[in-house]
Amino acid sequence: MTALDIVFFRCNIGPRGCNKLAKMTKLYLMKALSSQPYKGTRDYYPEDKRVQNYIFSVWHKVAKSFGYEEYGASILEPLEIFVAKSGQELANEQTYSFTDRGGRLVAIRPEMTPTVSRMVAARRQELAYPARLYSIANVMRYERPQRGREREFWQLNVDIFGDDSVNAEAEIIMVSDNVMKEFGAKSDDYIIKINNRKLINFVMAQYLGLDVTQAQAMVKLFDRKNKISEQDFVDQAGEIFGDQSVVGLQKINSLLKATSMADLPEEVRNSSSVHEIQALFTLLERAGVKSLVFDITLMRGLDYYTGMVFEVFDTNPENSRSLFGGGRYDGLVGMFGAEPISAVGVAPGGTMMEYFLEVHNLLPESRSTTDIYVAVLGDVAREAGNLARELRSAGINVELNMSDRKLDKQIKNVLKKAIPYILFIGEEEVKAGIYTLKNIASAQEKKLSIAEIVELIKE
Amino acid sequence: MTALDIVFFRCNIGPRGCNKLAKMTKLYLMKALSSQPYKGTRDYYPEDKRVQNYIFSVWHKVAKSFGYEEYGASILEPLEIFVAKSGQELANEQTYSFTDRGGRLVAIRPEMTPTVSRMVAARRQELAYPARLYSIANVMRYERPQRGREREFWQLNVDIFGDDSVNAEAEIIMVSDNVMKEFGAKSDDYIIKINNRKLINFVMAQYLGLDVTQAQAMVKLFDRKNKISEQDFVDQAGEIFGDQSVVGLQKINSLLKATSMADLPEEVRNSSSVHEIQALFTLLERAGVKSLVFDITLMRGLDYYTGMVFEVFDTNPENSRSLFGGGRYDGLVGMFGAEPISAVGVAPGGTMMEYFLEVHNLLPESRSTTDIYVAVLGDVAREAGNLARELRSAGINVELNMSDRKLDKQIKNVLKKAIPYILFIGEEEVKAGIYTLKNIASAQEKKLSIAEIVELIKE
Repeated sequence: MTALDIVFFRCNIGPRGCNKLAKMTKLYLMKALSSQPYKGTRDYYPEDKRVQNYIFSVWHKVAKSFGYEEYGASILEPLEIFVAKSGQELANEQTYSFTDRGGRLVAIRPEMTPTVSRMVAARRQELAYPARLYSIANVMRYERPQRGREREFWQLNVDIFGDDSVNAEAEIIMVSDNVMKEFGAKSDDYIIKINNRKLINFVMAQYLGLDVTQAQAMVKLFDRKNKISEQDFVDQAGEIFGDQSVVGLQKINSLLKATSMADLPEEVRNSSSVHEIQALFTLLERAGVKSLVFDITLMRGLDYYTGMVFEVFDTNPENSRSLFGGGRYDGLVGMFGAEPISAVGVAPGGTMMEYFLEVHNLLPESRSTTDIYVAVLGDVAREAGNLARELRSAGINVELNMSDRKLDKQIKNVLKKAIPYILFIGEEEVKAGIYTLKNIASAQEKKLSIAEIVELIKE
Repeated sequence: MTALDIVFFRCNIGPRGCNKLAKMTKLYLMKALSSQPYKGTRDYYPEDKRVQNYIFSVWHKVAKSFGYEEYGASILEPLEIFVAKSGQELANEQTYSFTDRGGRLVAIRPEMTPTVSRMVAARRQELAYPARLYSIANVMRYERPQRGREREFWQLNVDIFGDDSVNAEAEIIMVSDNVMKEFGAKSDDYIIKINNRKLINFVMAQYLGLDVTQAQAMVKLFDRKNKISEQDFVDQAGEIFGDQSVVGLQKINSLLKATSMADLPEEVRNSSSVHEIQALFTLLERAGVKSLVFDITLMRGLDYYTGMVFEVFDTNPENSRSLFGGGRYDGLVGMFGAEPISAVGVAPGGTMMEYFLEVHNLLPESRSTTDIYVAVLGDVAREAGNLARELRSAGINVELNMSDRKLDKQIKNVLKKAIPYILFIGEEEVKAGIYTLKNIASAQEKKLSIAEIVELIKE
């Protein structure tokens, strides 16, 4: 019975449907399928997965160390939860959305924040606040693939719900700082830019005296500031001010030349938002977070932020880009019909993190999770099986090779797989109960009993 | 600036588009969104995630102990790789498929085997064989949700490529058996049913003398055997045989009454497939795998199997169902234009595993990953921060509460979160450098220095 026969006889959608299906299957069976992954996504072979697992392990460690607990959710969500708040670009242009077989409009999540907000809203009565939650989850965005931007990527999401104080904001930035340090980054390898949406609103309306339309244009311009020339910036700002351009540009000038909060124009410096940011800086400096910069032009793309926003940048000129960011979003949980619950969060992505670690040479040496490769010499399959079983039950990861491939080919394979030890077992070894263990890196061989092997590997 | 304003000013799809978008957003902003997850999927709150993480940890441990290395891939794949081989039901009726914004026909993977086969085909020259690969990955199937069947679930996939011997089949079944044992299952909590597709073919064509159409019907009937009455089975088998029904039914009878391979009709017993299964049983019994049963009616749903197939069943009458299965599929890698590479694999699912553990009372007690909750009494926020930092850098997971919630409410929260210890810090404690640590389960309090706390938690 061929595969085709089996497809056919299991078919129960009527003779016409089944014939069509069989034809289609035959077509597929004849033409070779592409072995490439879906465009913009990546296959993680063991050597790639090890890097990803290293990044995940640091994320898990830091999030847990601050008392955050892991949660999870389906990659599919009702589309509407993203349309409502993630911002037009993310929800409308970059989201993988479709209609399911039951007619529901669904989306593969482009980010995790709406999902965790939904989950908090669903159990708002039962949860203990402040609720500290984290996840490591895959998200998908339909973007033009390029270095550091993939259509599927993994994100750490760390969020605290139900604490509206500056303590929560400080903690989320401390978590971010700890992530960087735990990866081995030094304080001058990155900077953390901090701003506040409430301050932006104050600056636009009170300090610059702009109306809503002008303010929208100005925020957009601030966001582009580092991507355009200084002259273009001044020209476009002048246009927004219209009649008031002389006074307006002066004000902008004194605003933007400030390199610290103390340098800000008095009116801005005395605003309650600046006091809030100052309190945040005090807490962070006390906690040993260096790398802090106040940046009035920092906007952050997502629409749901309501207060503090921050972004971590690589300072290396080869990779001087935004690594990740976060902020306060007090309005999201309330959208699910629940009482509003305040929230602060951050979401580093795996791909960006990987480039950072590469550029700063911070990736640890990669080796297989397998400890020992057992090469069987001669007719001792049964004994080799027992040996492998014994080592495994002592907690050692053992690949047992039963094939009769040539030994040099086997050794080549061990190198390819980056397994640190090879153990030889033949009739003599079985008789003596002593086995030859070779350290691949040092090329040293030792003759050891099982107990000695276990001890050596365990240390 | 409201969220709506921000949506609006970031809009760059022309005034008409932006107006429409703003209207839509306003609508969403007004109506409360549902806080429920997408139908048939599940939110994993920390207490649920802990159970899942326990299952994952056992999977990781067992797969690694046999020298399998982890890989990963995107959840989206070109649809065609599932249409070709997964079988009509899975690819056509249960797959989440849609057209992406670039016109590509894609699917959320309903299983992992085609993906890992694709990955092996893409690197067929570079890989070291036998290649031992595993992943823990989410898959989605559009099914009617019910207990034990969710639209998104997680699977362990363990596969060995490039070993066409019975050793590979034995190893995959040993991995499966080890998974069950590592979870604490006893040998009589489950049975492993084994069959072989080649034997099925032999029985249908040679022993029963059926033509292709009859064989297809008979395989279907065998597959349903345990779901219909004995009389119905006999009636339907008789229909398939037609004229030959007397001899045919006699033959089927002597086939099905065999409770072991030794009882099989001589013609079948002497077939090479039965010898293969016997060799497999010998290897497994030698390796201490009990719970083995030969079952000529075991078919397995997926179309790509070419040789040995097996399935693990719960023996508990409350949950007597298939837990997971696997088998040999030598044709799949070759579909990607590569040389055929032999393969054997198994894929336990998380939901089924969880029910098994529940029914057999094998789930470990659940506690938070957070070790200590720090309750701050009075004006010692700064010192509490330092204490938390010190404990964290010693590897302890600490949730620091800075809010001024009442202490009894805080203790309630610690209970809710299942954190095992609470530590109190006030001015006195700061002065003395001695803190009160309370074990929640025993209600015992101890006055300890930081070093003593670290020591106590570490053990």
